[in-house]
Amino acid sequence: MTVAGVGVSPGIGHGPVYVLTASVPEPPEGATYVGEADEEKARAHAALEKVAADLEARGVRAGGEAKDVLAAQALMARDPGLAVGVDALIDRGTAAERAVYDSFGTYRDLLTSAGGYLGERAADLDDIRDRTVAVLTGRAMPGVPDVAAEPYVLVARDLAPADTALLSKDVVAAFVTEEGGPTSHTAILARAMGVPAVVAARGATGLTPGVRVLVDGAAGTVTVEPGEREVAAARRRSESREQALRAATGPGGTSDGHAVPLLANLGGPGEVKAALANGAEGVGLYRTEFLFLDRKQPPTGAEQETAYRAVLEAFPGGKVVVRTLDAGADKPLAFLPPQGEEPNPALGERGLRMFRVHPEVMAGQLDALARAAEGLPARLQVMAPMVATVEEATWFTEACRARGLTSAGVMIEVPAAALRAGDLAAAVDFFSIGTNDLAQYTFAADRQVGALSALQDAWQPALLDLIALAVGEHGRPCGVCGEAAADPVLACVLVGLGVATLSMSAPSLPAVRAGLAGHTLAQCRAAAEAARAQSTAAGARAAARAALPRLAALGL
Amino acid sequence: MTVAGVGVSPGIGHGPVYVLTASVPEPPEGATYVGEADEEKARAHAALEKVAADLEARGVRAGGEAKDVLAAQALMARDPGLAVGVDALIDRGTAAERAVYDSFGTYRDLLTSAGGYLGERAADLDDIRDRTVAVLTGRAMPGVPDVAAEPYVLVARDLAPADTALLSKDVVAAFVTEEGGPTSHTAILARAMGVPAVVAARGATGLTPGVRVLVDGAAGTVTVEPGEREVAAARRRSESREQALRAATGPGGTSDGHAVPLLANLGGPGEVKAALANGAEGVGLYRTEFLFLDRKQPPTGAEQETAYRAVLEAFPGGKVVVRTLDAGADKPLAFLPPQGEEPNPALGERGLRMFRVHPEVMAGQLDALARAAEGLPARLQVMAPMVATVEEATWFTEACRARGLTSAGVMIEVPAAALRAGDLAAAVDFFSIGTNDLAQYTFAADRQVGALSALQDAWQPALLDLIALAVGEHGRPCGVCGEAAADPVLACVLVGLGVATLSMSAPSLPAVRAGLAGHTLAQCRAAAEAARAQSTAAGARAAARAALPRLAALGL
Repeated sequence: MTVAGVGVSPGIGHGPVYVLTASVPEPPEGATYVGEADEEKARAHAALEKVAADLEARGVRAGGEAKDVLAAQALMARDPGLAVGVDALIDRGTAAERAVYDSFGTYRDLLTSAGGYLGERAADLDDIRDRTVAVLTGRAMPGVPDVAAEPYVLVARDLAPADTALLSKDVVAAFVTEEGGPTSHTAILARAMGVPAVVAARGATGLTPGVRVLVDGAAGTVTVEPGEREVAAARRRSESREQALRAATGPGGTSDGHAVPLLANLGGPGEVKAALANGAEGVGLYRTEFLFLDRKQPPTGAEQETAYRAVLEAFPGGKVVVRTLDAGADKPLAFLPPQGEEPNPALGERGLRMFRVHPEVMAGQLDALARAAEGLPARLQVMAPMVATVEEATWFTEACRARGLTSAGVMIEVPAAALRAGDLAAAVDFFSIGTNDLAQYTFAADRQVGALSALQDAWQPALLDLIALAVGEHGRPCGVCGEAAADPVLACVLVGLGVATLSMSAPSLPAVRAGLAGHTLAQCRAAAEAARAQSTAAGARAAARAALPRLAALGL
Repeated sequence: MTVAGVGVSPGIGHGPVYVLTASVPEPPEGATYVGEADEEKARAHAALEKVAADLEARGVRAGGEAKDVLAAQALMARDPGLAVGVDALIDRGTAAERAVYDSFGTYRDLLTSAGGYLGERAADLDDIRDRTVAVLTGRAMPGVPDVAAEPYVLVARDLAPADTALLSKDVVAAFVTEEGGPTSHTAILARAMGVPAVVAARGATGLTPGVRVLVDGAAGTVTVEPGEREVAAARRRSESREQALRAATGPGGTSDGHAVPLLANLGGPGEVKAALANGAEGVGLYRTEFLFLDRKQPPTGAEQETAYRAVLEAFPGGKVVVRTLDAGADKPLAFLPPQGEEPNPALGERGLRMFRVHPEVMAGQLDALARAAEGLPARLQVMAPMVATVEEATWFTEACRARGLTSAGVMIEVPAAALRAGDLAAAVDFFSIGTNDLAQYTFAADRQVGALSALQDAWQPALLDLIALAVGEHGRPCGVCGEAAADPVLACVLVGLGVATLSMSAPSLPAVRAGLAGHTLAQCRAAAEAARAQSTAAGARAAARAALPRLAALGL
């Protein structure tokens, strides 16, 4: 039997299925206890505290965003209102596990009937309830094992950052999810870890735990109980693909010599090694959030300078594009809280908009960048996120110029910026398209909602139209640093649309290099034209593949 | 002295200033009480309960969204965890008001340090704290008076639905806010009420309460202590404008006879009267949410049929465009909860997307519409909200056709739909542009966040570009039913871009009719071209005004 989905991280994974499920059986109604009420209460309180402490500890180990999410859940487990309800039920003779179950139920009903943001918290409560009931009934708490005798294939409806914070390639052979799309959290994580992944695999959570499956992250298939020959053949296919990728070295470009510098996306200086190992010619997106998240005070100028210099020194002849702080939205900063309530943080005061409220943070970052680049041979370029208008672009460029930063650009991730690239070109030196956010806004479809993944597909013709508008004929180079650049087929189409550079997570570089080297610029242009002539994402993808004949032979 | 802002609802308002402020003095640190601890606790609990009950009662009187918001706040006032904290402080000798103040403070710190969604709730807590302290110290609870001897000018940083739920024209002479833009809640409410309004008036909350001001909702000015002559002159200007509007009657169109049907936006059958009184030639947007909100079960088919028929019967020869249910986002339904957590509801499973999960709700609505139109001479058109792709448009049109509904269209409010209007045209009979949501997504700027109002300005050239793309050359008529159509200057530009019909809240119809009747189609086209040649919203507005010479004489 084979389950079909969408391959989002290539490679072959083989191992036993581990189905991530949060279901803990409901304690029987009317369950009572033997012994003293006070002891039973103590047992309930201890379980709630154990759950809270465990959530907190997992958060601390994971760090980053996961830490905040888990700390907030721990707070709910410790809510005194809950404990009061549990005690009242125990006083009436109810067993601790049922008392916990029912109290959470009452709380949940209250939240659900309140609607709005409180209603949305109901799902969090269920998770905490299940964990507490699991502790009281001697079961393992739901969650992903972070050690394993043999790497397992992790199957889930969808994966949240909290689920995957502690995983590594040694533990997970492949990811398979029922929801999600090419830009979902699972897809991005899998590519970054170099683990094969298939998303949108309907029915996958129905697989029997422990059964062996073969996951093909390029073809998007999950084969149940494959024969030995099948596993061997898949491994051979995968190896010949790997060989083709190893064979493609040197600077990026088409087979007829049109140069397309292939750059790496970095989240911190620690990722330089992987970028160099995969032949990155420079850095197309150096995210600087790691310097600012999870701290009470902004980093000092010296601290920033060191972090920027570390990457600039690693690419002596290459270019390094640094994106200024993109806080807000799903990355709130403790020392820069939003000005007011934000019902939709992705549409709120994020990116450059936050700098307009806190110009001193921008000044500190640009000063540190200017100092870091002094005397180094790398070409530093600085760009601002979430720019929508000429006024914003001009304001940012002037701040860069005032510090002697000679190359100032903007991300194109808001539809308005793509539509008015011609106006913006007069104010900046270069553009870099962030396809993930651009798709999110163009289709009004949240990147974090798996059910809307079809709308976040970078192959949607409307997105290709906007990319063509952004590239325009305005004389400014335009790169792509979103996940779209990491798809070797789409990478050819982007080059055909006139994109100058491609930047991606390091493990994706070899496949993109091989795909580009297998085709001429004219073929890329024909593929782009064929894709834009379609009216659906699936049609665009198929038309582009048909126009790029060498893909199949390269196993891409 | 004059405070300048942006006029968003024309007319003259004159009256004493009422500044909406939530500030209640902090009870002194170390405040103690005389008497028994238990009595002091009872006093604190009674105050919390009074605040909760008051919030709840205000919610019930207001209905709609305000009800849910206020019910959720009442729930926070009744949180047992808070009461426990208050009691503990009273046991240590602290006076009730200070105990309440400090307990809320502790709660607030917990939420703030948790960050994320919990952190965002901190502002709500402050409001509840202030109300409780006000009760305990014998002050009036913060809020807007809903009766007044003389209509007052309501001045605030910004207004929320909960603030304004109970207001009417008899009580409020004008609105003035420091934040907000042309599509903010205040602007929409003011136009619907026919009350003058000025938004983005920096410094307005510094006005002395009780001082008399003159608000010019067309010019966007607030004059402090105006002279009698000044008031009289303003009233005369306003009257000659009113006269010009009264003079403009009959069907909408340019001075050289290009017909532009002027239609009304309706939120329910109760608004038919105002639409007819203002000369609406039909209905361009009949919102159907009123049938579905605030109920546990969906409305029956018969109930829906009655509501649709009431409007169809009111416009015997005209067209009536009904929008199918646009639930989700800021309008969640009790019986159709979202499938999962939605961190950004405006980018979630709203509009037609929800019908894909609950097709039975769409079927019931389309069936009722088909029955309602039977035998009536009005031309029923049905359109779906939040369509982004051809697949969605085709699915909806087929469902309409299967029920004999002959005119099926889609809203253009997602950028992708405007970019691919040519593809969508093959699947539908007509388009209607929702400029408010279209601007929200095109600029990635939340309609509900006042600080981002400059980005939601319908004059932004990128938005005009998208409207031009949506109108296209695909042979399908394209109307506008967003707030942009209610601006008489922008209405001329929209007609110049090729928009076929304009639909707006009824009170805006006369000014738009007068503006259009004062200009030729060629002048409208020239204004549109001049606006699109600009790179900023302010530039586009100024260029369009300059190209439309009769506006000033008409007082528009």
